[in-house]
Amino acid sequence: MSVTSAKGFQAAGVAAGLKPSGDRDVALVRNTGPLDAAAGVFTGNRIKAAPVLWSEQVLKAGRLTAVVLNSGGANACTGPQGFQDTHATAERVAERLNIGAADVAVCSTGVIGERLPMHALLNGVDQAAQQLGDDPDKTAAQAIITTDTHPKTTTVHGNGFTVGGMVKGAGMLAPALATMLCVLTTDAIADADALDTALRAATKQTFDRIDSDGCMSTNDTVLLLASGASKTKPTQEELETAVKQACADLAHQLIGDAEGASKEIAITVTNAKTEQEALDVARAIARNNLLMCALFGNDPYWGRVLAAIGTTDATFDPDRIDVSFNDVPVCVNSAANPQAHAADISARNLDITVDLHAGENTATVHTNDLTLAYVHENSAYTS
Amino acid sequence: MSVTSAKGFQAAGVAAGLKPSGDRDVALVRNTGPLDAAAGVFTGNRIKAAPVLWSEQVLKAGRLTAVVLNSGGANACTGPQGFQDTHATAERVAERLNIGAADVAVCSTGVIGERLPMHALLNGVDQAAQQLGDDPDKTAAQAIITTDTHPKTTTVHGNGFTVGGMVKGAGMLAPALATMLCVLTTDAIADADALDTALRAATKQTFDRIDSDGCMSTNDTVLLLASGASKTKPTQEELETAVKQACADLAHQLIGDAEGASKEIAITVTNAKTEQEALDVARAIARNNLLMCALFGNDPYWGRVLAAIGTTDATFDPDRIDVSFNDVPVCVNSAANPQAHAADISARNLDITVDLHAGENTATVHTNDLTLAYVHENSAYTS
Repeated sequence: MSVTSAKGFQAAGVAAGLKPSGDRDVALVRNTGPLDAAAGVFTGNRIKAAPVLWSEQVLKAGRLTAVVLNSGGANACTGPQGFQDTHATAERVAERLNIGAADVAVCSTGVIGERLPMHALLNGVDQAAQQLGDDPDKTAAQAIITTDTHPKTTTVHGNGFTVGGMVKGAGMLAPALATMLCVLTTDAIADADALDTALRAATKQTFDRIDSDGCMSTNDTVLLLASGASKTKPTQEELETAVKQACADLAHQLIGDAEGASKEIAITVTNAKTEQEALDVARAIARNNLLMCALFGNDPYWGRVLAAIGTTDATFDPDRIDVSFNDVPVCVNSAANPQAHAADISARNLDITVDLHAGENTATVHTNDLTLAYVHENSAYTS
Repeated sequence: MSVTSAKGFQAAGVAAGLKPSGDRDVALVRNTGPLDAAAGVFTGNRIKAAPVLWSEQVLKAGRLTAVVLNSGGANACTGPQGFQDTHATAERVAERLNIGAADVAVCSTGVIGERLPMHALLNGVDQAAQQLGDDPDKTAAQAIITTDTHPKTTTVHGNGFTVGGMVKGAGMLAPALATMLCVLTTDAIADADALDTALRAATKQTFDRIDSDGCMSTNDTVLLLASGASKTKPTQEELETAVKQACADLAHQLIGDAEGASKEIAITVTNAKTEQEALDVARAIARNNLLMCALFGNDPYWGRVLAAIGTTDATFDPDRIDVSFNDVPVCVNSAANPQAHAADISARNLDITVDLHAGENTATVHTNDLTLAYVHENSAYTS
C-alpha cells in the first residue's frame, strides 16, 4: 500500500492540469487522528522553494493534519508571490477539511522559476479533498511523480503499528536529501519529538546516502505524520527501526529509477578513521563524472576511483589503498592487481569497495552511472 | 612558436610506440642556459603519480636543465616500480645530455594504473635527445597530447624577453590544475624565487579557474624554466604579467578543446563579499551536472543556477540574486525576469553573470557543458 497503509490516514491524487501530459498532479494526505504529531526534514539548499519555507514554519508546532503536494511546478524562485501561492493552497485545503492553514504542509516539485497555475491547482485541491479515502490505487503516489517512471510506495509493519510512505525522486538526487518529496505516515502513538528523532536518524542513514548526480534541490521535503490510530506506543527504538526501514526501501527505489541510469552502484568505504571520512570518500567517488562515465561503459577503470579519493581530506596512506569491483580486487596497495581483468561489471548492480586501512569505520553511498540518457533527458527539461 | 620561442631552449617530440596510434608520444625540452632556474606547481590530488613525486623532489633545488614528457601512460598508481621507472627515465635523459638526473623533471599523462613500456620509452628518450633543436613544427607539443584534438602552444613577448609554452589538457580539467602538463620557458634573467612567485600568481588566476568537469588529476604539472639568454632582467611585475598572459592563453585553449564540449562557458560572479566566495559560487555553478546538461541543450534554465548557488556557504540574501545569460537578465531578485525569453544561448560562447549583492568582489570560472560526446568519450577510455 502507501501512505494509507497506516490506520488513521486518507489520501487522493487527481489530475488538475498542471502537467502538460494530463497525468495526476495534485495529491492530498489527511491524518484523521486521533493524534496529529508530525516532524519534517528539509533541503540543505539555501535557496528554498516557497513550500519549503512554509512547511518548515508550520512544522515548528510539531503538528500536521494534512499535506498537499503538487507536481508540474516547483514554486521555487518565484518571489513573494510564490509564497502567497503556497499560503493560498494551504488555506484552500484548510477550508475544505475544516482545519487551520497552519495544520497543512505544502510540497511542490517540477520546474524552478515559474509560478504555479493557481486556478487549476486550487480546483485540484477541491477535487482531491472530495476523493480522500483509502486510495487503493495509490493515486496520491502517482500524482507526485515527475520524471520518475513509476510511483514509489512502501509499507513496514512494526510491533502493533505500521509505517507507510510514498516518495518521488528521479533526478537531482544528492546529499542532504535528493529532489524528493516523501510523506511517511504511522499509526503508532508518538509525539513530535519522538517522530523528529526517528526521522532524522533514518534520513541520515538512507536518503542522505544516495547521491545520484551530486545536485541538491530547492524543494526536498520528508514528512512523518503520526495518527496514533493503532493505539500502540512503540519504544523509540522500534519506531526508529520501522521508519528507517521505510526510508531505506524508498531510497532504494529512488536509485533504481534515477534519470537515465543504467547502473545502481553501491560504494562502500571500509576501515576509515571516522564514519564521516568514510562518507566523504564514498561521496567523492560517487560524484566523479569521469568514473561514472567509465562505469556506464562497463570499463572497470579503478584509476579514477583513486583519483577521486585523492581529492578528499580523509586519512589514508596514498600507497596503501585497496579497491574491489564486485568483490574482485582490482587495485591492491594503490596499484593494479593482476587479477583485475576478472572483474565483470556488466550487470546493473555494481559494488565498489574501498579499503583505506586507516581505522575501523564504514559507510556506503548509493549512486548511478552517468549515461547518454541522463544528458539527453536533462538537456531538454524545461523546453 | 612554443617552448622554443624563448632563447636558450631546444625541444623535440618523437613517436616511441607508447600510443597505439603511432603518434608522437615522447617530448624533451632542454634549457641551454646560461641560467637553469626553475619553478613548478603540481596537482593538489593526494594520490600523486610517480613523475609528480619525482619532479616535486628535484625542483626543491630551484633548478632544471631538462624536462622529459610522455603521453600514452600516466605512471600513476604503479607502486614503487612506477617510481623506479620515472627515475630511470630521468637517468637516461641525464646520460644523453651529460647532466645529472636531479636536473631533469619528468611528466607523464595517459591511463592510470599501468606501467610504462620502459624499453620503448627509453628508446624514445634517445631519439628525442638526438633531435633536439628549434622544433619549428612543434613536435614536442604534439607528443604530449592525449584526447586533445590539436597541440597547444603560446608565445608572449615582454620588454626585452620572451615567454613560450606548451600544454596538453582535454579532460579532467579541474581545480588546483587540470589534467594538464604545461611547460613554460623564458629567456628572462630570473632566479627560482622570482619564477616561483610569478608562476603561482599566474596559475592561481588562470589554470586554477578552469573547471571543465570537476575532476582533479593525479599528474597535473606546470613548470617554468628560465635560461637568462635574453640578458634582460625584467621587474617582478613584468615577469608575472608575461607568465600570466601565457598561462591565460593556454588555459583558454584548454577550455576550447575540452573533451566533447559544445560550449565554452564563462561564469562570472560579481559583488561577492570576498573573492573566495565569488570563486566558490562560480565553481559550484560550473560543477552542476543538471545545469551543464541544460546548457548543452540550449536551455537557459537559470533555476539550476540558483539551486547551485544555494549549495554554497557564500554570503547572499536568497531573495536578492540576479542572473544574466549573455547579458540578458533572466533572473532578478531570485525570480524570473519577464525579459528572460530574449536570452539566446545557442552560440558556442556563453557568459553567465551572477550578482550576489553582498560586496564588491568578482571572480570568473571557465567551464564546458556536459554533452553526449563527453559521456561517450569517457565511457570508453581505457578499453
